[in-house]
Amino acid sequence: MAEDDHAEAAVRARRELCERVAGRPLEHLAGRPVPAEEARGKVENLVGFAQVPLGIAGPLRVDTGAGPREVYVPMATTEGAMVASYSRGMKVLGAAGGARARVVAEGLSQHPMLVYADAAAAACARARVAGMRAELERATAATTRHGRLAGVEPELLGRRLVLRLVFTTGDAIGINMAARAAEACSELVARATGAEQRYVHGEDVEKRANARALQGGRGRSVVCDVVVPRAVLAAELRVAPEDLAAIHASYQLGFARLGTHNGLVQAANGLAAVFLACGQDVAYVTECATGFLELAPTPAGDLYASAHLPSLLVGTVGGGSGQGTAAECLDLLGVRGAGGANVFAEILGATVLAGDLSLLASFCTHEFVAAHERLGRNRPAGEP
Amino acid sequence: MAEDDHAEAAVRARRELCERVAGRPLEHLAGRPVPAEEARGKVENLVGFAQVPLGIAGPLRVDTGAGPREVYVPMATTEGAMVASYSRGMKVLGAAGGARARVVAEGLSQHPMLVYADAAAAACARARVAGMRAELERATAATTRHGRLAGVEPELLGRRLVLRLVFTTGDAIGINMAARAAEACSELVARATGAEQRYVHGEDVEKRANARALQGGRGRSVVCDVVVPRAVLAAELRVAPEDLAAIHASYQLGFARLGTHNGLVQAANGLAAVFLACGQDVAYVTECATGFLELAPTPAGDLYASAHLPSLLVGTVGGGSGQGTAAECLDLLGVRGAGGANVFAEILGATVLAGDLSLLASFCTHEFVAAHERLGRNRPAGEP
Amino acid sequence: MAEDDHAEAAVRARRELCERVAGRPLEHLAGRPVPAEEARGKVENLVGFAQVPLGIAGPLRVDTGAGPREVYVPMATTEGAMVASYSRGMKVLGAAGGARARVVAEGLSQHPMLVYADAAAAACARARVAGMRAELERATAATTRHGRLAGVEPELLGRRLVLRLVFTTGDAIGINMAARAAEACSELVARATGAEQRYVHGEDVEKRANARALQGGRGRSVVCDVVVPRAVLAAELRVAPEDLAAIHASYQLGFARLGTHNGLVQAANGLAAVFLACGQDVAYVTECATGFLELAPTPAGDLYASAHLPSLLVGTVGGGSGQGTAAECLDLLGVRGAGGANVFAEILGATVLAGDLSLLASFCTHEFVAAHERLGRNRPAGEP
Amino acid sequence: MAEDDHAEAAVRARRELCERVAGRPLEHLAGRPVPAEEARGKVENLVGFAQVPLGIAGPLRVDTGAGPREVYVPMATTEGAMVASYSRGMKVLGAAGGARARVVAEGLSQHPMLVYADAAAAACARARVAGMRAELERATAATTRHGRLAGVEPELLGRRLVLRLVFTTGDAIGINMAARAAEACSELVARATGAEQRYVHGEDVEKRANARALQGGRGRSVVCDVVVPRAVLAAELRVAPEDLAAIHASYQLGFARLGTHNGLVQAANGLAAVFLACGQDVAYVTECATGFLELAPTPAGDLYASAHLPSLLVGTVGGGSGQGTAAECLDLLGVRGAGGANVFAEILGATVLAGDLSLLASFCTHEFVAAHERLGRNRPAGEP
Repeated sequence: MAEDDHAEAAVRARRELCERVAGRPLEHLAGRPVPAEEARGKVENLVGFAQVPLGIAGPLRVDTGAGPREVYVPMATTEGAMVASYSRGMKVLGAAGGARARVVAEGLSQHPMLVYADAAAAACARARVAGMRAELERATAATTRHGRLAGVEPELLGRRLVLRLVFTTGDAIGINMAARAAEACSELVARATGAEQRYVHGEDVEKRANARALQGGRGRSVVCDVVVPRAVLAAELRVAPEDLAAIHASYQLGFARLGTHNGLVQAANGLAAVFLACGQDVAYVTECATGFLELAPTPAGDLYASAHLPSLLVGTVGGGSGQGTAAECLDLLGVRGAGGANVFAEILGATVLAGDLSLLASFCTHEFVAAHERLGRNRPAGEP
Repeated sequence: MAEDDHAEAAVRARRELCERVAGRPLEHLAGRPVPAEEARGKVENLVGFAQVPLGIAGPLRVDTGAGPREVYVPMATTEGAMVASYSRGMKVLGAAGGARARVVAEGLSQHPMLVYADAAAAACARARVAGMRAELERATAATTRHGRLAGVEPELLGRRLVLRLVFTTGDAIGINMAARAAEACSELVARATGAEQRYVHGEDVEKRANARALQGGRGRSVVCDVVVPRAVLAAELRVAPEDLAAIHASYQLGFARLGTHNGLVQAANGLAAVFLACGQDVAYVTECATGFLELAPTPAGDLYASAHLPSLLVGTVGGGSGQGTAAECLDLLGVRGAGGANVFAEILGATVLAGDLSLLASFCTHEFVAAHERLGRNRPAGEP
Repeated sequence: MAEDDHAEAAVRARRELCERVAGRPLEHLAGRPVPAEEARGKVENLVGFAQVPLGIAGPLRVDTGAGPREVYVPMATTEGAMVASYSRGMKVLGAAGGARARVVAEGLSQHPMLVYADAAAAACARARVAGMRAELERATAATTRHGRLAGVEPELLGRRLVLRLVFTTGDAIGINMAARAAEACSELVARATGAEQRYVHGEDVEKRANARALQGGRGRSVVCDVVVPRAVLAAELRVAPEDLAAIHASYQLGFARLGTHNGLVQAANGLAAVFLACGQDVAYVTECATGFLELAPTPAGDLYASAHLPSLLVGTVGGGSGQGTAAECLDLLGVRGAGGANVFAEILGATVLAGDLSLLASFCTHEFVAAHERLGRNRPAGEP
Repeated sequence: MAEDDHAEAAVRARRELCERVAGRPLEHLAGRPVPAEEARGKVENLVGFAQVPLGIAGPLRVDTGAGPREVYVPMATTEGAMVASYSRGMKVLGAAGGARARVVAEGLSQHPMLVYADAAAAACARARVAGMRAELERATAATTRHGRLAGVEPELLGRRLVLRLVFTTGDAIGINMAARAAEACSELVARATGAEQRYVHGEDVEKRANARALQGGRGRSVVCDVVVPRAVLAAELRVAPEDLAAIHASYQLGFARLGTHNGLVQAANGLAAVFLACGQDVAYVTECATGFLELAPTPAGDLYASAHLPSLLVGTVGGGSGQGTAAECLDLLGVRGAGGANVFAEILGATVLAGDLSLLASFCTHEFVAAHERLGRNRPAGEP
């Protein structure tokens, strides 16, 4: 970063770069108010728009399921030093020839819960559901043209039936279409089986880290990995592969002791910042910022690094993706609209890996606090 | 909500109401761009500002540690129907005479980790730390004027020492001052005890739901409760206390099966939306959206409801709180600056309780999906 | 229990009752040493036999998948008051007409882990496994005549493949046959896919409570439920349904805060005692004592109670089941040998439910400590 | 092990060795029935004694808090190959000069729960408890001469108060004295603060793995570590330090995915077998078999290994420790009676470490299944 990182000229030059990449003006990012009209269907009791500072990290080189990409990643945040940290990590990935990221599973699950008089009735209902697949597919098709019922698993929980429904949702996050379909399917099953109660989100997986999703995933599951040459680590991060493996071993013990589903380091930061920039629902960061990190020296003395994020709930159509600054940012990434969601998820996987490499290295070299001092927030008055 | 909820006049009228409440113009919410200068220290590689639609929920009546308040709660989101859902819940709280919320614990912990040659050395170090309290307080005081070292607990983890440091941070979230102090303290201990490695955030509690914080809390712990008369529930939510207790019992079984630290229902939604409006770090929603909900009929046939959020990491000074739309929203709540953080946390507790009451009721009455249809997002093209 | 519960005549009379029920002498229980020869294959460096006091609880009335049973349940323990507590609970179930228990799922999973050079190689391997089902079934059949491969799920974990293999194992617990088959299957897959490392129990689910098993189960999953009339509760346990529902609500909050996979109350006690009596591997209690309890008043004012134990690892053939006191106890239950394992699991489910009802009731009425004083262990010298 | 491991002469010779070590005859282990009288206070409805085969592992060399020990560890089990596996690991520890084990924390917690009308009342009660310390100590002293109240922490959970009481219990496991004291203390607090309900074990930590105990421990916390020379590993286990570090890294990922509190490998096996031999309550294995394993190459190319067991609930006085085969086994270990409990816990820590080293090595070399075939259980008829 230059000395005058926030000078008007620097900001403008950066924005022009982004406009060239996006192939369109980025007027709302530049300050032009988003029309109130565009908030319709997204918020009630509208009074205006929150504005959050947005910087770019990168370029990020990543091999995606749709081919290699080199992108600038928009991040909206008020945590000083964070974008710089991600940028530093992306430089490492680039120097390593780029990371590789892939969506390895896809499917939005909904878990309606049906309550029966007793376990015998619940077991009968479970047996009944096995033969209702076609009926449930029809019910789904009647509520959504984009979503498709891809799986039905009736699971007993005492006298309850958890009806695990998995939907594919195209490039939308798809939560509304899935909720509609789950409503229809659970209503059908409840009627056919004489359920006493029906709760459409009964085993409520929405927007919470949980052990089940850590194993099975929800939305899009992404794995991103890379081999970083020893020399690159030394030059860019001032650490050796063994340093990162050692801190990671300590972190794993710490995570085990904490009992967390988030074995990544600063995934929440990167995801929240990109979600905010790109019109995603930031409340999902609770559910998305979970997963596994691996840092291991290779036999050749380099570093193998991977991030596995089992539950990325993102969309490039529908939701908050279509207008204003969100559309501009998705265009900057080249992922807006149909066909973009998997690539977007893969970019997020690579972003998370970049951030974790950079941050752990700064902990190893004890530069973290100093970097925050240099780049960080205005301190409350009176801080030394 | 009126038919023309997003009409220009409606938006303007609402904003004028907010300006009267805030006692100041809310220009940035109205669309005036925040100057790039104000992003200094908050982001690098600035290109502009993300804009997110913002509505108000409320009024919310809540008895806080600083006296009774009645506030409009600003929420930035793109999830249609959510602000309406919170507003509905706030109406219930108001009809019940208001909720009561209190910060019941306060302290920002940092958990540096020191690694020793073996368990014997780590145990020696643990013993050594017991006598270093005054020294660590001095080291803390040398790095921050606002933070204070309130607790030191050296904990063994094999050959590692987790140095749990608890700081009070005034009305700031205080993460940077705590990191500085933790750096200084852990460096001191490492030197005094011959640690082989030192990781300033080694047991890394930052921005992740975890079992430890669920018990011990981090930041500000808030409990909010209320007794809602049976008639109010019937009139506003079309449910009886027993209905809510029944759905909650099913939810608790579901949560137990999921293995989640978040026993609330839509806490992530409310916290993310207010955080975003008020310049808080939304990545913290991962850590803040955890806790406990209780819904129980009273002997008199009413509903006792409570939300316990052990880890609210929020600030009304420093961080992203001081400028632009964040400052405007904190002023709308009347909590900006010194003395505001606890009240802000208490308002958040009441907001969460309101949202969970409203949402669970809509699940009971099967109105959830319909409400989303009516108020919700633009569907992807082609949805029925 | 009579005054002279431990008098020789009382013990003898009870043993004669058991012999009539078992239809055979119970000589080893009566003290005749088990021949060293019978320990062959079960222990190395044999020096003798541990002796643990064993009492009977019951009779227990339970409707099983093989029809109604009324049994005396052998429990080996040194915790005074425990057998009495279970007996009291069984009396309640009997007065309610008996509980109903069913094995609702069956399958012993093994989770070999294969490590690849990178995520791309692991993903290729996952794809490859899909076509290997027949081959893996053959490999399983070559190692065991009793076990059958019932499921194969290759799951990605970064650059690792967790090969979830599910076996049915007849009436044996089947861990050895499953290990043999898992060795063969994982070796096959490793060779076919070029795995760099292969760990036969890599995602090691053996003998540990875990979130995955809480959802998916392992071994035999049992649900047991009952409706206990209000009058029975009052007469036998001195509580009302509402009392038990209230304590259970408090327990659920406590369990959520503890972060435990065991939502039952004293399941570990009952399972350990019966396992020990019946020659089961008591180390499995770690994995078996998990699950869900429900206690809810019915609309008619009675109590609905259920226990759901997703992971019971028990066998009535093989392992420690065939000789000595174990065989005698399995004969007492009428479940030794082929065809017995599911009924045995169902009896365990009912036993757990009985114990939890009794214990929670004693907590409600504050009789727990007093009962332990009356029946309990010899106190260390000097206790008042 | 000799060819004729179970031959009468071999068993007798081994028993004579044990008798010399124990300095007393081991008649009950040899088959002499334990008198029914000795079961008084430990079981109701006595019908006899379960007999479980018992072998010895070792010798185990361990440096304890009471000085160096070399012991034979009695293990009762019916899982073939297990004692041999532990013996092999103990040989490794011995060849490394012995492990070092220490009790690093001690205290039996009980968590009564008090329920109040609302959160305000609960907060008042919490404040009140702060001034009741002396009163609670007196109440404790009135119920037990051996136990001492060492800590009182009143913790809010909504409108509930979890009264965390920590007792030291000398060499007894102390659960009964702690329950008595908790009854008295909670009754006092409930009366002083107007609690509506009181549950003596409300946040029920007994006999369940849980996240809270994983951090804070319960009973005795033990850390055991050792440096094993590279050559010893190669000679005894046929592995290199890097092999064990690699399998451990895979296991840690697996454990994180499983969501388990047990980061050890076969701790449940070793603890259950020694508990059973030594008259401990085997149901506690659920709670004791949790903790952390570390396996890391040293800079010198050897292996650093440690096991941290935060919650060992064991006693050498009271409970099942005083009679029959339990007393004989505790005498074999030289830990029976006053002064023995910490050494016993340390021996358990070393036993667990030995077993985990041996088992992981057998997984690395793919010898696990073969060893079970050679030493293992009689197979069900018809197995190949």
